[in-house]
Amino acid sequence: MYLENINSPEDIKKLNIKELKVLADETRAALINKISNAGGHSGPNLGMVEMTVALHYVFDSPKDKFVFDVSHQCYPHKILTGRKEAFLDSEHFGDVTGYTNPLESKHDIFTVGHTSTSVSLALGLAKGRDLQQSKGNIIAIIGDGSLSGGEALEGVDYAGEYDKNLIIILNDNDQSIAENHGGMYKTLKELRETGGSASNNIFKSFGLDYRYLDNGHDVQSLVEMFKSVKDIDHPIVLHIHTIKGKGLPYAEQDRESWHAGGPFNVEDGSPKVKVQEVDDPVFDSIKELLDTNPKAVVINASTPMGLGMVKGVREEYVKRGQFIDVGIAEENMVAMSSGVAKNGGTVVFGTFAPFFQRTYDQISHDLCLNDSPATMLVLQPGVYGMNSNTHIGLCDIQMFAHIPNLIYLAPANKEEYFQMFKFATTQKEHPVGIRVPANMAETGVEDTTDYSKYNKNKVEKKGSQVVLFAVGVLIPLAMKAAQKVKEETGLDITVVNPRFLTGLDEELLNELKKEHQLVITIEDGEVMGGYGQNIASFYGNSDMRVLNYGISKAFHTDFDPDELLKENGVSVENISNVIKEFVKQCN
Amino acid sequence: MYLENINSPEDIKKLNIKELKVLADETRAALINKISNAGGHSGPNLGMVEMTVALHYVFDSPKDKFVFDVSHQCYPHKILTGRKEAFLDSEHFGDVTGYTNPLESKHDIFTVGHTSTSVSLALGLAKGRDLQQSKGNIIAIIGDGSLSGGEALEGVDYAGEYDKNLIIILNDNDQSIAENHGGMYKTLKELRETGGSASNNIFKSFGLDYRYLDNGHDVQSLVEMFKSVKDIDHPIVLHIHTIKGKGLPYAEQDRESWHAGGPFNVEDGSPKVKVQEVDDPVFDSIKELLDTNPKAVVINASTPMGLGMVKGVREEYVKRGQFIDVGIAEENMVAMSSGVAKNGGTVVFGTFAPFFQRTYDQISHDLCLNDSPATMLVLQPGVYGMNSNTHIGLCDIQMFAHIPNLIYLAPANKEEYFQMFKFATTQKEHPVGIRVPANMAETGVEDTTDYSKYNKNKVEKKGSQVVLFAVGVLIPLAMKAAQKVKEETGLDITVVNPRFLTGLDEELLNELKKEHQLVITIEDGEVMGGYGQNIASFYGNSDMRVLNYGISKAFHTDFDPDELLKENGVSVENISNVIKEFVKQCN
Repeated sequence: MYLENINSPEDIKKLNIKELKVLADETRAALINKISNAGGHSGPNLGMVEMTVALHYVFDSPKDKFVFDVSHQCYPHKILTGRKEAFLDSEHFGDVTGYTNPLESKHDIFTVGHTSTSVSLALGLAKGRDLQQSKGNIIAIIGDGSLSGGEALEGVDYAGEYDKNLIIILNDNDQSIAENHGGMYKTLKELRETGGSASNNIFKSFGLDYRYLDNGHDVQSLVEMFKSVKDIDHPIVLHIHTIKGKGLPYAEQDRESWHAGGPFNVEDGSPKVKVQEVDDPVFDSIKELLDTNPKAVVINASTPMGLGMVKGVREEYVKRGQFIDVGIAEENMVAMSSGVAKNGGTVVFGTFAPFFQRTYDQISHDLCLNDSPATMLVLQPGVYGMNSNTHIGLCDIQMFAHIPNLIYLAPANKEEYFQMFKFATTQKEHPVGIRVPANMAETGVEDTTDYSKYNKNKVEKKGSQVVLFAVGVLIPLAMKAAQKVKEETGLDITVVNPRFLTGLDEELLNELKKEHQLVITIEDGEVMGGYGQNIASFYGNSDMRVLNYGISKAFHTDFDPDELLKENGVSVENISNVIKEFVKQCN
Repeated sequence: MYLENINSPEDIKKLNIKELKVLADETRAALINKISNAGGHSGPNLGMVEMTVALHYVFDSPKDKFVFDVSHQCYPHKILTGRKEAFLDSEHFGDVTGYTNPLESKHDIFTVGHTSTSVSLALGLAKGRDLQQSKGNIIAIIGDGSLSGGEALEGVDYAGEYDKNLIIILNDNDQSIAENHGGMYKTLKELRETGGSASNNIFKSFGLDYRYLDNGHDVQSLVEMFKSVKDIDHPIVLHIHTIKGKGLPYAEQDRESWHAGGPFNVEDGSPKVKVQEVDDPVFDSIKELLDTNPKAVVINASTPMGLGMVKGVREEYVKRGQFIDVGIAEENMVAMSSGVAKNGGTVVFGTFAPFFQRTYDQISHDLCLNDSPATMLVLQPGVYGMNSNTHIGLCDIQMFAHIPNLIYLAPANKEEYFQMFKFATTQKEHPVGIRVPANMAETGVEDTTDYSKYNKNKVEKKGSQVVLFAVGVLIPLAMKAAQKVKEETGLDITVVNPRFLTGLDEELLNELKKEHQLVITIEDGEVMGGYGQNIASFYGNSDMRVLNYGISKAFHTDFDPDELLKENGVSVENISNVIKEFVKQCN
């Protein structure tokens, strides 16, 4: 056992190559211990074990600085930088996050979770070093999947002009989350097949120095390669071929399924917790569209599973030319969709809410300015989506609701989702976005609303004195609060489901003034710049009182969604209390 | 004269090669007639004359579709597609916009003004064509400067996987707005110098077919090249070397100055309207920082002139390593700045407000999540910035104010700008953004505010009954409105300059309740999701009345800023009337 004595990278440097190999095996065992018991990013980390050992052996962190792209492959790095207990001891599993985190260790430089960021961030570190006339290697570690993102390519291009130490490691396991997409993957394959000597070399085309290593799991070769470039005086790309899922045969074989997941039995990879088969309204809606409209296409950016387009299902649609994965390239996804809509196609594009952050310009300029009637699915926005500060879904309303021409819809249940999807994919007037909750309730009652009547809100329940506006999936909470008020005071309040987030139902809002004195808005995203403030603004010069509830402005992380809502006042208990208090004061 | 008979591309097809050359000369003359009398994008259009003639001769627009990147080089296209009067006759100069515009002609497919968009948009058109099982060539025309943008590179990468007709023309004039930056420009140069045969070929590295033409002004060669790829069954890149400013010697020589500008005398290029020398507080602030702090660096994305870093000035700072132009690569600009700030440098980054649209993800995830203390200069936001729907600066508050950790400041005058800049570049707590108005008044009184006391508003004038909150440059208008109210009613109202847009001065807001009954907010950007709605929300559950004024949600274009404000109620006249009306009702 060497790992038990590794408390910092210093300790690794005391070992010889043979011992480093044992350390790598022990690191992999620690890694498997955690992922098999607690889940996590399996494939990316299994492929990084030997490289991480060699990196810490050769370079001197934190003087030399590693920038992990996405950073979901940093588990071995955490194991080797004083955080091994979080992998060895189940009681400490929760001590570390799944991404690099400067609050945990001086060996972690950035909090990151988005792809394609490492090269630019590393360029900045390098420039900071230069300005201080300091020394040290700056090393960006980026996967092949991340390389197709615009930010990464901009970074690689500028690296080709930069003239001091910078080491870019392309960790090439020939896989994104799903399979790779983009022309560069043809030539990366040629490079792998020729030991790096193929004539079409994307890195050299960006003006960069380049070296190739075929066996990214051979500690000795890795150490030699890293030693040969340590303190290099110009940028260089080290193209290193690794195997995603290395060490677990089933993971090596099915790289997509083993990108990330829950606890599993090590012997055969079977899940420890049976995954519940749930129906998937997004897939159902897409499937029906594609099966009935041959001019329809769905475009996504490397997250096909978010649309239910899992392996074994999507191939048929790919063959028909109706399903396109552009790879990690969200900007291209949006602009391309605008083009499809402009040229007679019916197009749906979608990915998870946090990744929409990199499409603001394309949504505004390429899509909405051109009023292209595409359908945009913003998957799992709000508190019930991803819950890491690296993957924020709390600001989709802020990002999109103010953009002209866009119709942005919030379904409260499956039936509304289906009807909104049908409306969006059959109209030719405007781009229509749908924020698609992670889980939608079923009412059992078909929604037959004509959504071409823009900004028409639905009154879920008519009452008096108080109106509760609840965005999307908060409708059930609102109804419960109303019920509680009724039970405890006898008062029937009004509950409104706005459905449209890009405009107000002014007729309704004026009508409500007659028999109500208070409007409460609740939303599952940030309150600042959100939906509710539009309502406050509308009633600003009237007798109507308005209270806006939503999530506070902060990079919330690792939260329980219901708890976070509660902390921000969005609970049946608090909302009903606020109403009761108001009514008491009025009477 | 052939041009007089050219009313659509059909008419061009009747000419022979010799006649096409004459038509090209006539087209250039028409172009020069307009730009010399009315200004515009000189260089890009002068370089596109022959190519545009040849494109319309060979291809069949609008069945074949051209997508112009940025589209500031579409003047010859407009001349040849039925809009020549707008170039020949000064009375019709105003009939067409400076960008492609589907409202003007069926030969214009998209309204665009942002760089790097054409390949993705063209891919979408191509896919739309495929879905309809239709025919036709899709041609993207992109300049070398635009190629470094992430969206363009994502598009080129996906084009390398796409398998049907798509023609990408790289119009390579070896120039961005300023000089190019990025490693790719070294290898594009090699390609130009070797007639396209150099081994490092960025397009082939993305899996694309490729051809080169060195003389992009020879109509015959252009026609032959286009004929040879018409109806091609797969994507191909045509790398065509042109001369920016072709035909005007002074423009060919000084490509940066002649990118765009005002009216000039054709004989020598001298300006018809003497450009007023104005002082430039942005440059002054930057210069002082760089001259006094050797660890400081300024990073921009291909718009050095926006920071006053014009040719002849910036070279010295480039040599010192204190001024970096990353080329058209805004995402890299932001992420790199985060890295510099994290590694001990003092960093300022900036570009024009519309181009910040492509950095939302980097501002949120790379910069603010990491709380990197960089200074961000958002140049010319609001109505007084650019005034084309292709270049929107009305939504910077919407985009940024809700992002955690960011301090976003709105100076009302030069003195405040200088003090805010000093604060931003000396603190180490947070990223600080400054929205820098196109024109700032000078008060003559030094601002000594301690901006580390976050969210402290400035009461410009203390009164009673009514408070007027005015964002940044609207303070003078607010003071005038207050003056008018005073003169006409004797009432002294309160005027507040919020300065901080990322949070509220709750102490002040509560204090104001005591002697005021109405708050009016005015801002120079969109009202929905803007600053004022935060105030409305704050006072929602109080007796305070709130009225929010700002720009309506629409892609406003070619507006006069004062007129647009007025139409939206933001004028001395209207605001003072609203106040007088309110006061009358109260008394």
